[in-house]
Amino acid sequence: MRVIIDAFGGDFAPACTIEGAALAQKELGVGIVLTGNEDIIRSYIREHDVKFTDLEIIHTDDVISMHDEPTSLLKTHKDSSMAVAFKKLSEGEADAFVSAGSTGAIVVGGTLIVKRIKGVKRPALASMIPSPDKPYMLMDMGANAECRPEMLQQFGIMANAYLKRVEGRSNPKIALLNIGTEDTKGGELQQEAYKLLSKADINFVGNIESREMPKGVADAVITDGFTGNIALKLIEGTASTLFKMIKGALYKNIINKLAALIIKKDLYVLKGKMDSSEVGGALLLGVKKPVIKAHGNSDAKAIKNAIRQAKYFYEGNVIESISQGLESVEE
Amino acid sequence: MRVIIDAFGGDFAPACTIEGAALAQKELGVGIVLTGNEDIIRSYIREHDVKFTDLEIIHTDDVISMHDEPTSLLKTHKDSSMAVAFKKLSEGEADAFVSAGSTGAIVVGGTLIVKRIKGVKRPALASMIPSPDKPYMLMDMGANAECRPEMLQQFGIMANAYLKRVEGRSNPKIALLNIGTEDTKGGELQQEAYKLLSKADINFVGNIESREMPKGVADAVITDGFTGNIALKLIEGTASTLFKMIKGALYKNIINKLAALIIKKDLYVLKGKMDSSEVGGALLLGVKKPVIKAHGNSDAKAIKNAIRQAKYFYEGNVIESISQGLESVEE
Repeated sequence: MRVIIDAFGGDFAPACTIEGAALAQKELGVGIVLTGNEDIIRSYIREHDVKFTDLEIIHTDDVISMHDEPTSLLKTHKDSSMAVAFKKLSEGEADAFVSAGSTGAIVVGGTLIVKRIKGVKRPALASMIPSPDKPYMLMDMGANAECRPEMLQQFGIMANAYLKRVEGRSNPKIALLNIGTEDTKGGELQQEAYKLLSKADINFVGNIESREMPKGVADAVITDGFTGNIALKLIEGTASTLFKMIKGALYKNIINKLAALIIKKDLYVLKGKMDSSEVGGALLLGVKKPVIKAHGNSDAKAIKNAIRQAKYFYEGNVIESISQGLESVEE
Repeated sequence: MRVIIDAFGGDFAPACTIEGAALAQKELGVGIVLTGNEDIIRSYIREHDVKFTDLEIIHTDDVISMHDEPTSLLKTHKDSSMAVAFKKLSEGEADAFVSAGSTGAIVVGGTLIVKRIKGVKRPALASMIPSPDKPYMLMDMGANAECRPEMLQQFGIMANAYLKRVEGRSNPKIALLNIGTEDTKGGELQQEAYKLLSKADINFVGNIESREMPKGVADAVITDGFTGNIALKLIEGTASTLFKMIKGALYKNIINKLAALIIKKDLYVLKGKMDSSEVGGALLLGVKKPVIKAHGNSDAKAIKNAIRQAKYFYEGNVIESISQGLESVEE
């Protein structure tokens, strides 16, 4: 398989995208297509002696930045490294897409260049969030600030397909994020989505309160993009504030500092596990090809991991499984 | 001043409500009115030798439970300890109200028995949330799952009045919870609320992302009741899950256990500070008298603290200040 990578997306592009792609090729044996300024890419590869066995570069000068309007991907930035990567993906020149660039632009490109799977109302972003035992999926985490109930039903079906095919969870528990467990809780959106999710051919376990979410009791937590985005960043902010306070307690006096020396390593491991609010990149589910949005601050290892996710996404035939899941509801 | 207390609301009622009321009277010199079964209250006071200097008991047999429909407070449970307390409060027999009973019923009783301040569209629940430096207010945290922009504007005005008058913050920073800082972020609700909050005579500092919230950078975070409830419980759930994981790391091996012995006390203090997601009870802002909802699991000390909050709420003339704030917008 071939993965196309927007070499100029992300805070540390193109260094980390090039290095990450090379790492991924070495480890996973995937073909790599990079989009972006060929001179810069070639000279980086030469200067840093980066090894590729199967590399294609598609030259383009322009880059879409985090500050550009996402829809400009289709107009003023239609020749940017991201737009070109999407175009080539849609034309079948690659099997999956990875970018650490603007999330909004990735949603636009996925939806309007790669296009939606037949029957999908709106693609959505899904992330795997760490929890003590195993990560759980949060979806939508920001592609659709306003949602209709049918969209949440589809999110449940898409989450189910991904978790089965890629995460190997045989009967994933799909829950609806709500302010109480009874089916009458929440606003009209939640009440209607509850009914629709109950009808879908998934293991819908009902409403979940946000207090239970971090424990990882559900495999997927479905919500609208506004609430999902608030939740994702709040987990991150709460964890980071707490660790800062713990650090304060550990350095309070000399005795504590001695104790801190001993346990510091284990706490750092924990911090690393929980502080980054997501495991791997975000998935854009509902479009015709695997699209992975890596963190903006991805290093080479994070890019490699995003490419691995793209590989599993592709090999798991998730798109096909989503199609089937959606059809079973429409019938 | 006199505080009326629903003696039979809460998990540990009436023991903790009676004990808490007596503690509050001793410390704060407030007059106490208890509603509920007089025989049970009198015999508890006698058996446990609880001292009151100024106590009135208003007898009623019925109690509204957490499982009862909130609106039943006005019908089948109109003679419950909570309903009677609201009635007497509205008739001027007390100056403030405290209950550890059903949140939904408190919102119903506050809104429909005590009634709204003139001009208030919908009363809302506000909580003070711990943060490293000082607590910040989150509002609405669940009274109104669905909100209109004008409601969020009023929440900002009410939060401002309370923070000035009770918390003594001279120019509190009021922020709107959103998925980005630009004024174009979020759905229609957030975009319109942003405009209205900008027009209000408060120190509106714009949108705040949930990642920044736990740091306490704003004095009040305004949001709809659905998002607020999700946020409140998510902070609680994330902190509690994290502390569980930290505990695991501390007991991993004998060396860690030794270190844990030293720092355990400081971590417990921190846990206590952050784990309970709220400081004190919740405030129902927008009704004609101070109404405090204490935690369902309140012990005597928590009830006493809720009564203290009621006293400050009353003495700060918050209701009057809210009235003035709302009028200044209407003009």
